[in-house]
Amino acid sequence: MIIGKVTGSIVSTRKQDNLIGNKFMVIEPIHTMNSESSQLVAIDNIGAGIGEYVLVAQGSAARIGCGMPDSPIDAAIVGIIDDIGKLV
Amino acid sequence: MIIGKVTGSIVSTRKQDNLIGNKFMVIEPIHTMNSESSQLVAIDNIGAGIGEYVLVAQGSAARIGCGMPDSPIDAAIVGIIDDIGKLV
Amino acid sequence: MIIGKVTGSIVSTRKQDNLIGNKFMVIEPIHTMNSESSQLVAIDNIGAGIGEYVLVAQGSAARIGCGMPDSPIDAAIVGIIDDIGKLV
Amino acid sequence: MIIGKVTGSIVSTRKQDNLIGNKFMVIEPIHTMNSESSQLVAIDNIGAGIGEYVLVAQGSAARIGCGMPDSPIDAAIVGIIDDIGKLV
Amino acid sequence: MIIGKVTGSIVSTRKQDNLIGNKFMVIEPIHTMNSESSQLVAIDNIGAGIGEYVLVAQGSAARIGCGMPDSPIDAAIVGIIDDIGKLV
Repeated sequence: MIIGKVTGSIVSTRKQDNLIGNKFMVIEPIHTMNSESSQLVAIDNIGAGIGEYVLVAQGSAARIGCGMPDSPIDAAIVGIIDDIGKLV
Repeated sequence: MIIGKVTGSIVSTRKQDNLIGNKFMVIEPIHTMNSESSQLVAIDNIGAGIGEYVLVAQGSAARIGCGMPDSPIDAAIVGIIDDIGKLV
Repeated sequence: MIIGKVTGSIVSTRKQDNLIGNKFMVIEPIHTMNSESSQLVAIDNIGAGIGEYVLVAQGSAARIGCGMPDSPIDAAIVGIIDDIGKLV
Repeated sequence: MIIGKVTGSIVSTRKQDNLIGNKFMVIEPIHTMNSESSQLVAIDNIGAGIGEYVLVAQGSAARIGCGMPDSPIDAAIVGIIDDIGKLV
Repeated sequence: MIIGKVTGSIVSTRKQDNLIGNKFMVIEPIHTMNSESSQLVAIDNIGAGIGEYVLVAQGSAARIGCGMPDSPIDAAIVGIIDDIGKLV
């Protein structure tokens, strides 16, 4: 999983039928020593708000782990982060 | 999923049999602070036009989520983006 | 698999139901000649401590190989490294 | 899928049994504004020649989409490119 | 698949049960014009020696293609390279 910050949302009216009803959030991955930014889009079933830090699962984990095995989903918000205990 | 811009299309006559009938579009991923470009090719069942911004699913999500579980497809246009509400 | 160092842990109370009971560790991948850092988050069923070097499996291997095929997990600590015998 | 150029081939006599009979080609991915090169190796069932531009599928799409679901194959040439119509 | 050089091996006594009995090798991917190094760890059932050039399959191909569909394995040495015929 990666840690990301929710920075926006996406509106898409013409889309694959099995995506209808999902909310699409723009995620900025958080790297420690690296300001390079390569945003991604994840579905949100948890209710994350813009500005929150979230845990994002990618690949088949997003699709299968969120109960949508037949939808074209490759990233999902799976947790909202309260705290990161970090060393180093 | 990633956000991309449709920048072209591909013509391929000699190809894997289970790809016949698909349209192949060239996609330029959109990064926020990063001009590095690593284009990819995605199938299009939605009807995206050149210049449009699209949502692209990658990996097994593209193949299975678009109803072609037995085809060698690893990227698909799954939505056309009307608007991106962004913060930050 | 990649070699990483456990640098912290994550607290997330609002999360996908099928993630409950897992421990989430922050992992710093170890590259040889490259100080670029792109941390990831992996579940830990082995009992790795902060500061330890671990073997991390990614993708469907993490989910299926750790006996949680229906959970949105894309990275798991699968071994604690005692020693790396290296040449070159 | 990605666009690549076939730049060579690989000879491997000691290999996994379920790879026997496949042709392995070295592929140089084509990026638009980026000269960084990270070659990959793909199987070829289409008959691509050295110097040709090809469409390469990666991940489980290569293995399953080319009818070899039980072989350790993560990249396959799935089409030979005749023409790329590009805008920008 | 990628081409890599075997540069070492890993000792891990505390590990996931379904990894027991595997040999873990450190692999340095070979890029053509790029000295950036991001090593990975792959299991070896072929018998590769340190210093040899190998073909490495990644993702579900490693796990399923090497007959260990239930193990947390995301990279495997699947061939030892005798020769690379290269153009360009």
